[in-house]
Amino acid sequence: MKTTIGAQTCLYPMPTTLVGANVNGKPNYITIAHAGLMSAGCIALSINKVRYTNAGIKENESFSVNIPSVEMVKETDYCGLVSGKDVDKAELFETFYGKLGTAPMIQECPINMECRLIQTIDFPKHYGFIGEIVETYCDEQCLTEGVVDFSKVQPILLVRNDQSYWKLGDRFAKAWDVGKQLEVQKSS
Amino acid sequence: MKTTIGAQTCLYPMPTTLVGANVNGKPNYITIAHAGLMSAGCIALSINKVRYTNAGIKENESFSVNIPSVEMVKETDYCGLVSGKDVDKAELFETFYGKLGTAPMIQECPINMECRLIQTIDFPKHYGFIGEIVETYCDEQCLTEGVVDFSKVQPILLVRNDQSYWKLGDRFAKAWDVGKQLEVQKSS
Repeated sequence: MKTTIGAQTCLYPMPTTLVGANVNGKPNYITIAHAGLMSAGCIALSINKVRYTNAGIKENESFSVNIPSVEMVKETDYCGLVSGKDVDKAELFETFYGKLGTAPMIQECPINMECRLIQTIDFPKHYGFIGEIVETYCDEQCLTEGVVDFSKVQPILLVRNDQSYWKLGDRFAKAWDVGKQLEVQKSS
Repeated sequence: MKTTIGAQTCLYPMPTTLVGANVNGKPNYITIAHAGLMSAGCIALSINKVRYTNAGIKENESFSVNIPSVEMVKETDYCGLVSGKDVDKAELFETFYGKLGTAPMIQECPINMECRLIQTIDFPKHYGFIGEIVETYCDEQCLTEGVVDFSKVQPILLVRNDQSYWKLGDRFAKAWDVGKQLEVQKSS
């Protein structure tokens, strides 16, 4: 039985990320789970206009998207609770830079995507930033036969509806494959 | 030890959705996991320009985002393997319409978000569609005390790196809360 629940966002769970930018010449990190993939190799983020990070992304036309693992949940949540205006959040982590030189990344996060800003969308209360990934950095121990293995990454998944973080479960089917069984059934 | 893996998209896992649109006056569904949240109450999708669905989203300025559960994995994967040009994918599901009247939704999916198109981004090979959610429909048995419970929804999570579908794991921490422990430690 269907029920209406208002215009509620239910595109969850989403991977929780730490977005890095240089603000006033110093690295800063903000917790963002409202992100997504756009086009080929692009990430779209949405950040409230009041946040400290925006000026840095605009100034340097670059940012990073870092994937923390479950053991970093306190630090990850904390970076969404306090502002870079008031607190030096970069002191929580070891920062490194990559090809662009202006997108700070977090050594402790198993995956880091370095992005060049290609488009900014002006929403009423948010900026939408679309970045093209220029390089991805991965902890070697999170690869299995050269492929990123998310059972090793152990990402933090956000569900906003119950305001909770969730773990990733088990791999259970092959994508672009399991549906072929239905294709065969239908054509036979 | 960090290693570079090229400009690889690693914003995963992402919830796999079935995006609905009326094309040539008939409901059609396409599998999309490259989606994200933008601004408040908006969903951004990215669809390859060659796909059949685009004309319907543009014509009706509306679409739906349906969240299938793990037991629908064959049908979900199948909708990404075949084109609405060749196959009537709507016959796999029971379709219903909501407030807009032009965004077909799937009865069997535990969650359906009905969206009004508010912006289209022209990427080289993809259209980026940004939709504002106008209403969300949920199976009553997926609510716990009125809140959407993703352990009941059982979404299908895509990881593109290993081309696999994954299940959601366990809830393990409160968001906008667990980081307060660090805040207290730092100020004490």
